Amino acid sequence: MTVSRHPFDVDTAVAPTGEHRFAATITDRWNGLTSRPNGGYSLAVCLRALACDLPFPDPLAVSAFFLQPVLPGPVELRSNVARCGRRMATGEVRLLQDSRERLRVVATFADLTPSSGDMRLFTAPPVMPAPETAVDAVGDTSQPAATITDRIEYRMAAMPSWRRGTPTGRAATSLWMRFKDGRDADTMALPMLVDAAAPAVLELGETGSSTLELTVHVRARPAPGWLACRIVTRCVAGGYHEEDFEVWDSAGMLVAQSRQLALLPRR
Amino acid sequence: MTVSRHPFDVDTAVAPTGEHRFAATITDRWNGLTSRPNGGYSLAVCLRALACDLPFPDPLAVSAFFLQPVLPGPVELRSNVARCGRRMATGEVRLLQDSRERLRVVATFADLTPSSGDMRLFTAPPVMPAPETAVDAVGDTSQPAATITDRIEYRMAAMPSWRRGTPTGRAATSLWMRFKDGRDADTMALPMLVDAAAPAVLELGETGSSTLELTVHVRARPAPGWLACRIVTRCVAGGYHEEDFEVWDSAGMLVAQSRQLALLPRR
Repeated sequence: MTVSRHPFDVDTAVAPTGEHRFAATITDRWNGLTSRPNGGYSLAVCLRALACDLPFPDPLAVSAFFLQPVLPGPVELRSNVARCGRRMATGEVRLLQDSRERLRVVATFADLTPSSGDMRLFTAPPVMPAPETAVDAVGDTSQPAATITDRIEYRMAAMPSWRRGTPTGRAATSLWMRFKDGRDADTMALPMLVDAAAPAVLELGETGSSTLELTVHVRARPAPGWLACRIVTRCVAGGYHEEDFEVWDSAGMLVAQSRQLALLPRR
Repeated sequence: MTVSRHPFDVDTAVAPTGEHRFAATITDRWNGLTSRPNGGYSLAVCLRALACDLPFPDPLAVSAFFLQPVLPGPVELRSNVARCGRRMATGEVRLLQDSRERLRVVATFADLTPSSGDMRLFTAPPVMPAPETAVDAVGDTSQPAATITDRIEYRMAAMPSWRRGTPTGRAATSLWMRFKDGRDADTMALPMLVDAAAPAVLELGETGSSTLELTVHVRARPAPGWLACRIVTRCVAGGYHEEDFEVWDSAGMLVAQSRQLALLPRR
């Protein structure tokens, strides 16, 4: 067994403590704009636990309900298996901190080994300048507390307008993403990455967003290299908004689609 | 307490049998093209059980994992509450038939009483002929076993091409839906309705589709009347496809967004 020293692998590691029980530590190295651990990062820890219980390597369909904020520190994970079939298996994991459930995840795992052929796409990757010529989307505006920007690199056609204090009024954007340490994204990383960019509603002048529920459908194992991502919010109503996130790999394949329902800060 | 005689309410009724336990009967009156109970209908039964445990009236975010087919007959429902907060509550329900879990649902309920104001839409309802001039999308092609077409009315600009044996090759369509008996759709009906139309992939020449996971975000209580629905599939790969479903009410509000990951029949 090879032990990865990449931060994503180290910081999502889980240790079995009993049947369907695991211990893990949520680090402060994946904090988002809120200075709290990114939700997708906590989700990735949950999926690592579930992967121990299910005989397939790739998360295929993932739904996470964010019940309470997760803070840096030790967490306990409790899993159960709903069904184990020939082609896929479904299980659940609950993340507890200070004995309170913070996150509940149900996921189906399968084997996404590339298969021959049948691929029909009725959409296309976002059109952006190549990552080599795109600009660092964080740059000088980096906030020291948002440590996730030390782990993930974001590039865009131009510095986002909301960072310059002039939101565009359009909650739709595209960006490149990759791990800063050169680790390529795999199917375990995609459910984290779809939650790791600034929410599109910041371009509507909003100051934040709290995920209530996040669904991720992993469509293929990503090819190595930069990931092209498209983010869009179509409806803000009653304090809630959805956000759709697409991830395209360097081979032009749609590798993940996610949607989350999130709550805007109270004004 | 008023007792509704509408089939949707009668056929989704649950009876408490103990703490967090309920009994229900899956009828054969909501069978889809497969001649099996529609997945959204079984989901609605699960949500009825969960509604008994949670102090808010409206399903807000729902995720359902379809583990095994549900057949007409008695089912057992077991629920648990993950978190009960001031503004929303999250719980889970498992549907068992013949002692085997068939469906696992996690859902957050809230109060979607219309609030003043903040509504920003970056999309629009589908453009279709008014329901009065649209055509019955089932008509003479009705299959007796697909009993759901006796409960729900579907109207479209034209009879779907796949029903005429000439699929369009485009997995995108729009249609009107309503209950045939005049019951208006409410937030409990929306998670069923988003799964109650023929899958868009039939226009790609596919002959069926089995839902693996369905996420529904209910965005508002629907106004009375016809619902305008938009269905689209953007990616078919490795035997899987997603389907997005939007529901717009007669007041022009986006009342539900859903996405499902589904499996095509093996060729």
